[in-house]
Amino acid sequence: MAIGYPNGKSYSHSAENNKKNQVKKTAHSFSKRGMSLEDDINASNETYLSRNKAVIHKKPTPVQIVQVDYPKRSAAVIKEAYFRQASTTDYNGVYQGFYLDFEAKETQNKRSFPLKNFHEHQILHMKQCLAQQAICFVIMRFTSVNRLFLLEARVLIDYWDLKNNEGRKSIPLEELEKNGYELYYGLSPRIPFLDVVDVLIEKSFSKESNNHDKR
Amino acid sequence: MAIGYPNGKSYSHSAENNKKNQVKKTAHSFSKRGMSLEDDINASNETYLSRNKAVIHKKPTPVQIVQVDYPKRSAAVIKEAYFRQASTTDYNGVYQGFYLDFEAKETQNKRSFPLKNFHEHQILHMKQCLAQQAICFVIMRFTSVNRLFLLEARVLIDYWDLKNNEGRKSIPLEELEKNGYELYYGLSPRIPFLDVVDVLIEKSFSKESNNHDKR
Repeated sequence: MAIGYPNGKSYSHSAENNKKNQVKKTAHSFSKRGMSLEDDINASNETYLSRNKAVIHKKPTPVQIVQVDYPKRSAAVIKEAYFRQASTTDYNGVYQGFYLDFEAKETQNKRSFPLKNFHEHQILHMKQCLAQQAICFVIMRFTSVNRLFLLEARVLIDYWDLKNNEGRKSIPLEELEKNGYELYYGLSPRIPFLDVVDVLIEKSFSKESNNHDKR
Repeated sequence: MAIGYPNGKSYSHSAENNKKNQVKKTAHSFSKRGMSLEDDINASNETYLSRNKAVIHKKPTPVQIVQVDYPKRSAAVIKEAYFRQASTTDYNGVYQGFYLDFEAKETQNKRSFPLKNFHEHQILHMKQCLAQQAICFVIMRFTSVNRLFLLEARVLIDYWDLKNNEGRKSIPLEELEKNGYELYYGLSPRIPFLDVVDVLIEKSFSKESNNHDKR
């Protein structure tokens, strides 16, 4: 797997050490303008796997296979198949014993993220996972301004329910800045989303101990 | 989803209540002779999902799509695609916050389970998952005698390493009876493997608290 290089900028070693202290990074530093969000996430998952940090994979696109040919001395060829609708989100895996489950979405919009990018079956799957105490979220990219956010599933679901009940059609960027976690591109992994997962895990533990103290 | 009925035997309500007390069940009671292990596991997963007990899905077969046709007023048709090798096991999901990961295998053998039914990439994936504290196992079916076993991944991996080091080719049935957990077909779910997962979770907690006491 080729390691990508920043867009023309030279990579400064101190930049990576300072990364954690930087509140805001220039979004252009490490982003791959031509690469899709999916490519960046897949590459990040490969980085995490190679470092034995997490085991996260994209689920293959489900297809309904109708006809397969078996030529002699050649690999089997699928000659007719149809796309099936997935019943889950695209990504899941394990990180320090926790089940992670997430979806990746992009928009060309500059100021708000359309809720129609999500589908009922994905929302339903997230609800089912949350009921089983999964760590569940979405990674959302504003492609035209190259900004990335991680939004917890329970927050997305609240917006989704507003869509159905109050006609809300999108999530404004300002609300993502407030209710989500901005992600900054890195070199390796390209999208260090586990850094935010660490925060979510911390949050859930302190919530548990708060409840404990109240008893 | 049609609910299957036992092979010709009338279903006695008391049978289900007594099920937990029975050490040994007649393997033929609820088995679906014609159904594959995969079908039975998929049906069990659907049962668990419908009862909000766990969210477990089979991963779709990965295919490399080369050519797609887009006929007017019809669904897209995949005209050329190839099977890709999966890099993971077939099943994963979440149960009470735990990440579950497993593979399903069948053999016609009566007395031992061939290790060649497993593949290096599956074993590697299991090792990676165990390193992240996943609950990882295989469900193995002896089709000709209709018996099912759940074997923890770490035990399978030990046998696999023996295969490479000492030429071991299969796991004898007696050792599965000893080192694995026999599963008995039910009505709904057909294969109640979460009952064994509960035992594995208990085991891991008592191991933790034992380690704790020793400090």
